[in-house]
Amino acid sequence: MWDQIFSSRMSRMTASEIRELLKLLDQPDIISFAGGIPDPKLFPVKTFQDAFAETLGPDTQDEALQYSASEGYPPLRDWIAGEMAKLGVACDRDNILITSGSQQALDYLGKLMLSPNDTALVSWPTYLGALGAFNAYEPHYDRLQPHSNRAAADYAEVASGKGGQVKFAYASVDFANPTGETIDRAGRESILDMADELNIAVIEDAAYQSLRYTGEAIPPMLALEIARKGHIDACRTIYCGSFSKTLSPGLRVGWVCAAKPVISRLVLMKQASDLHSPSINQIAIHKVAQACFGEHVEKLRKSYKTRLDHMLNALSQHMPEGVTWTNPEGGMFVWLTLPEHLDGAELLAESLRSQRVAFVPGRAFHADGSCGNTIRLNFSQQTEGTIDEGIRRLGQLLRG
Amino acid sequence: MWDQIFSSRMSRMTASEIRELLKLLDQPDIISFAGGIPDPKLFPVKTFQDAFAETLGPDTQDEALQYSASEGYPPLRDWIAGEMAKLGVACDRDNILITSGSQQALDYLGKLMLSPNDTALVSWPTYLGALGAFNAYEPHYDRLQPHSNRAAADYAEVASGKGGQVKFAYASVDFANPTGETIDRAGRESILDMADELNIAVIEDAAYQSLRYTGEAIPPMLALEIARKGHIDACRTIYCGSFSKTLSPGLRVGWVCAAKPVISRLVLMKQASDLHSPSINQIAIHKVAQACFGEHVEKLRKSYKTRLDHMLNALSQHMPEGVTWTNPEGGMFVWLTLPEHLDGAELLAESLRSQRVAFVPGRAFHADGSCGNTIRLNFSQQTEGTIDEGIRRLGQLLRG
Repeated sequence: MWDQIFSSRMSRMTASEIRELLKLLDQPDIISFAGGIPDPKLFPVKTFQDAFAETLGPDTQDEALQYSASEGYPPLRDWIAGEMAKLGVACDRDNILITSGSQQALDYLGKLMLSPNDTALVSWPTYLGALGAFNAYEPHYDRLQPHSNRAAADYAEVASGKGGQVKFAYASVDFANPTGETIDRAGRESILDMADELNIAVIEDAAYQSLRYTGEAIPPMLALEIARKGHIDACRTIYCGSFSKTLSPGLRVGWVCAAKPVISRLVLMKQASDLHSPSINQIAIHKVAQACFGEHVEKLRKSYKTRLDHMLNALSQHMPEGVTWTNPEGGMFVWLTLPEHLDGAELLAESLRSQRVAFVPGRAFHADGSCGNTIRLNFSQQTEGTIDEGIRRLGQLLRG
Repeated sequence: MWDQIFSSRMSRMTASEIRELLKLLDQPDIISFAGGIPDPKLFPVKTFQDAFAETLGPDTQDEALQYSASEGYPPLRDWIAGEMAKLGVACDRDNILITSGSQQALDYLGKLMLSPNDTALVSWPTYLGALGAFNAYEPHYDRLQPHSNRAAADYAEVASGKGGQVKFAYASVDFANPTGETIDRAGRESILDMADELNIAVIEDAAYQSLRYTGEAIPPMLALEIARKGHIDACRTIYCGSFSKTLSPGLRVGWVCAAKPVISRLVLMKQASDLHSPSINQIAIHKVAQACFGEHVEKLRKSYKTRLDHMLNALSQHMPEGVTWTNPEGGMFVWLTLPEHLDGAELLAESLRSQRVAFVPGRAFHADGSCGNTIRLNFSQQTEGTIDEGIRRLGQLLRG
């Protein structure tokens, strides 16, 4: 019955095998590097307790429990505009839309730009959730490679051959999920060049932007484009930020910062899709951000840096020849490339059986289904001792 | 630049003139019957204060601030399944998806079923937000008339002529926005008959279900269909519920109750679109619902009933001949039909100027843009005295 009723796009929205597999990981004796989530022990709980109590106090209780504007809570949008300015992005409240996490921003941006058979440029590998969001709008994918010599015209030609046009390049710029890698300044500039040439948008996913542990910060692409063009409203880069990796993912508060013609369309979309993000959460997270953002992020950086260092050291110590990995300057992930004959999914099954260590196989992060010999390791959720032990076991498995 | 980048669906997502107009209504001397929102003075604030404090207490603080499952918070889904059972809908947790308000459910259901040029059946007039949500998926509309003699085959033929098929009938069953009217039992059964004949889904929007002030409750269409078919998983009715009209809209918590094949697809959609509704809000609203749902709804019913009675009395007293209105048994709205030569939008402009009374013109609620001589009045937000005065002024305006 339902197959005749569902829309054509549903054929693109399928259950992830990984997700099904990871549901089996609840057993307490498993060391899991599979998640991609913050350590709950580091949540600023006391600050949230105070913020929610205050939000439900006399000054804002009505506003917190009532419907509110699709654009988002104005003081929070002002606060975010202030933070964006610190990153070189001069903007005001009207350049900011509050979304329910940056996942929602990705869904909206797919909806905003993709007609069926259009092309989205993404890196190989890329964030799985971006592919999930975009798939609903039935695009093709082509490979974004900031440092390649491939001509912009070639992208346009391939897209046209597939019955649409290139609509945007999606790039997770800092310590990307899944690789942990960062696009350097020259890479960012080259994406902007190509975007201008193709007249496409650039989606800058900055979910991990605050979590830099070493090295020097690189300006967001949106800042680089403002430097070229003089004003955010002349820019094609659409910046997606989030409080999920810094303060709390459970409140689902993220934002889009972009030119006003984009924000005004996204506001219509927000209104039609869920009216607005929860009023109470926006007021509360504004209070928490005001109370402790900088200081709390500093604390996270220290903790996660130690864990990253442990993981990189343990990898050096325990991995056999033929295994390579990225050297992230922040974020939550290290990405391993295994010898070509190995398959991450098969290795996971074996690892769960014999070593009780979990991770995410890398194939699903590739829009073309390539590179089965890769795996993603998360280091934000485990203590140093557990990281050492888990990587030791993984090395044992790989040395077979 | 952007016009070449936006998707084709964006031509359907336009700013509502009404919304723009209503932005001008902030002036304190205006009596507004334009909103459609609960009276904040009736929010169970103390219960929310306690619930959020407890949610951020030791037992659930980690869970409240962390990522959670796309399906929703299991104890809340269990609680809702229990409430649905009281309405004649036997179901379990796996038949429930938590959404960010029932607006999100409408967006997801459009996305689930509508390919461009498919047809959605809606009443004339219907909920404006449903049209907004569905428009993104580029459907045509045909008119749902439960008591008409139009043959199912005729709907199919018209839809096929427009290049698609009928996918669902959307019906707001109790005290609908905007008319305040309820579909009687025979009307519900006839929609189910037609849906079976056409093999389409039925979207049952039950946002106002709890707010009945007089008359006898009618079983949800989903309950009537279960009575026919024996089990929810064999049913085509998709029930959309919400806490927005009962406990608080500011938390954005609603739900879908439907057959498992539908819920499992919606879970994939939820994961791709915003991962999950805020963890903290789901835990907190579960506590509030457990603490006071029945008792609080009883209190709302008493307050709103008084206001509805006042509005109906005032209309009888002040409206000139030629103006008719609905006689709602619940909800938040009364719907006026004016003499044919009058236009609701023009009347609003005049009313704001000379009488300082606001309401919503009715044309936008009609998928075909007809019936400009209608207006929607909200009675949930104003005190009895203000209702009397506002209707008196409106009568004066209409008597010219």
